[in-house]
Amino acid sequence: MIETLSANRAFDGTQGIYRHHSAATNTDMTFSVFVPAHEEGEKLPIVWWLSGLTCTHANVTEKGEYRAACAEHRLIFVAPDTSPRGEGVPDDPDGAYDFGLGAGFYVDATQDPWAANYRMWTYVTEELPELVGAEFPADMARQSILGHSMGGHGALTVGLTFPDRFKAVSAFAPIVAPSQVSWGRKALGRYLGPDKAAWRKHDAVALIEDGARLPELLVDQGADDQFLQQELRPELLRTACTDAGIDLTLNLRPGYDHSYYFVTTFMANHLAWHAARLK
Amino acid sequence: MIETLSANRAFDGTQGIYRHHSAATNTDMTFSVFVPAHEEGEKLPIVWWLSGLTCTHANVTEKGEYRAACAEHRLIFVAPDTSPRGEGVPDDPDGAYDFGLGAGFYVDATQDPWAANYRMWTYVTEELPELVGAEFPADMARQSILGHSMGGHGALTVGLTFPDRFKAVSAFAPIVAPSQVSWGRKALGRYLGPDKAAWRKHDAVALIEDGARLPELLVDQGADDQFLQQELRPELLRTACTDAGIDLTLNLRPGYDHSYYFVTTFMANHLAWHAARLK
Repeated sequence: MIETLSANRAFDGTQGIYRHHSAATNTDMTFSVFVPAHEEGEKLPIVWWLSGLTCTHANVTEKGEYRAACAEHRLIFVAPDTSPRGEGVPDDPDGAYDFGLGAGFYVDATQDPWAANYRMWTYVTEELPELVGAEFPADMARQSILGHSMGGHGALTVGLTFPDRFKAVSAFAPIVAPSQVSWGRKALGRYLGPDKAAWRKHDAVALIEDGARLPELLVDQGADDQFLQQELRPELLRTACTDAGIDLTLNLRPGYDHSYYFVTTFMANHLAWHAARLK
Repeated sequence: MIETLSANRAFDGTQGIYRHHSAATNTDMTFSVFVPAHEEGEKLPIVWWLSGLTCTHANVTEKGEYRAACAEHRLIFVAPDTSPRGEGVPDDPDGAYDFGLGAGFYVDATQDPWAANYRMWTYVTEELPELVGAEFPADMARQSILGHSMGGHGALTVGLTFPDRFKAVSAFAPIVAPSQVSWGRKALGRYLGPDKAAWRKHDAVALIEDGARLPELLVDQGADDQFLQQELRPELLRTACTDAGIDLTLNLRPGYDHSYYFVTTFMANHLAWHAARLK
């Protein structure tokens, strides 16, 4: 059962925001769905958007500028939250922005106290797809996924894990190798524990090194992104893709930073690329 | 002197947010400017955006989806705040959203305690244009203006008052006759006093009745806007324009409400219409 928090006409379709109780996270979860105009009974391809650190569903919904392209290409666009939230959900003990609330890293935590609620992997790969497939006019045989920063990490790891599910996988400024950078080491270490073998399934570069394959990947990265050198390191993805024979298009964009000003500039490009592969 | 609060690359141009001390309002004021890519020394046409109740410069800057069209048509886009703000600036005594902070109604108040700071007419028609003309690559011979709700009221009244300055005037869900609706009666009564003769210069329908003329106007209005019947009343503008021989295009949009979901849907249309008249 889902509750409609709001539904607004936009670009001849409907931008909705919904809440439901998640069995995966054992919390209420909020997500947004844009459904373009369509015929009664018609099913449309579905694009999954995974958001970055500190975000909820709302950031991309309000600032992402995706509706024009989704209306043009007739794509459903779904944006989940980035972590469980609510009373009793533990947060970073220091209130840091890069762990806990708003920073689920799209993993199923195995360590206490996180394991009880921080099950975003199951949420975005199983529970929410089942719900969306049942409640919206989505053609689940035509799915694609993209995301930004931590959500780019999510899009890459989910896409690499389910290559048959997604017709297109792309990312904006993704964390490509969390095992090798401080954001990722902190998050994976706490959620998954110190055994780094468990981290490899949640590290795009490690997944590729371990044999995961996609025919192609599209990544846009701002050259003036303040997190480029320390946290994002797209060169690690480039090397892994080259070694694995994955056709990576890595666009380094001079002058662009990590913000939604960057994301929105190239959002229509990504969605057109997805649409061509979802036809 | 202006202070740059932020500057982000977007759509191959620069989205900036700036602060300066306003002599008109005797406060610091914040505004945003998008400047598309351009040649050194080149000047571009300038579009003024006036925002609605409760907004700052930030709402349209983050949620307005104007940059793609402004980049395409090579338009500078300027978004001022909607009222003075800061310590000592009086607000609605009841903290209402429709008067005081965030609700300057684009008038120069004549009544105490508002007259000291609430001088948004002078700010948006004199002080800020001078500043923008001096500090940005703006061709001040090619200006246009548009706005939303209270900002639609501002765009219409400013546009009707300076028909030679603006090559295009349009609005989303504007307050067209503030003298005849409750938002307007409250605001104009407090800012300008009880003499309704003083209100007519800040009422688009009254301005037209009193002889103000523009060759054409473009208005988009959601048919499911919750403020349509009580506050917006586009039929009053239609009658005034018909009587005055003003070519009004009034698009009533079924299913659309008062939100930015409505505004963004038709933003590119408005900017293309402006661009054609700014060539």
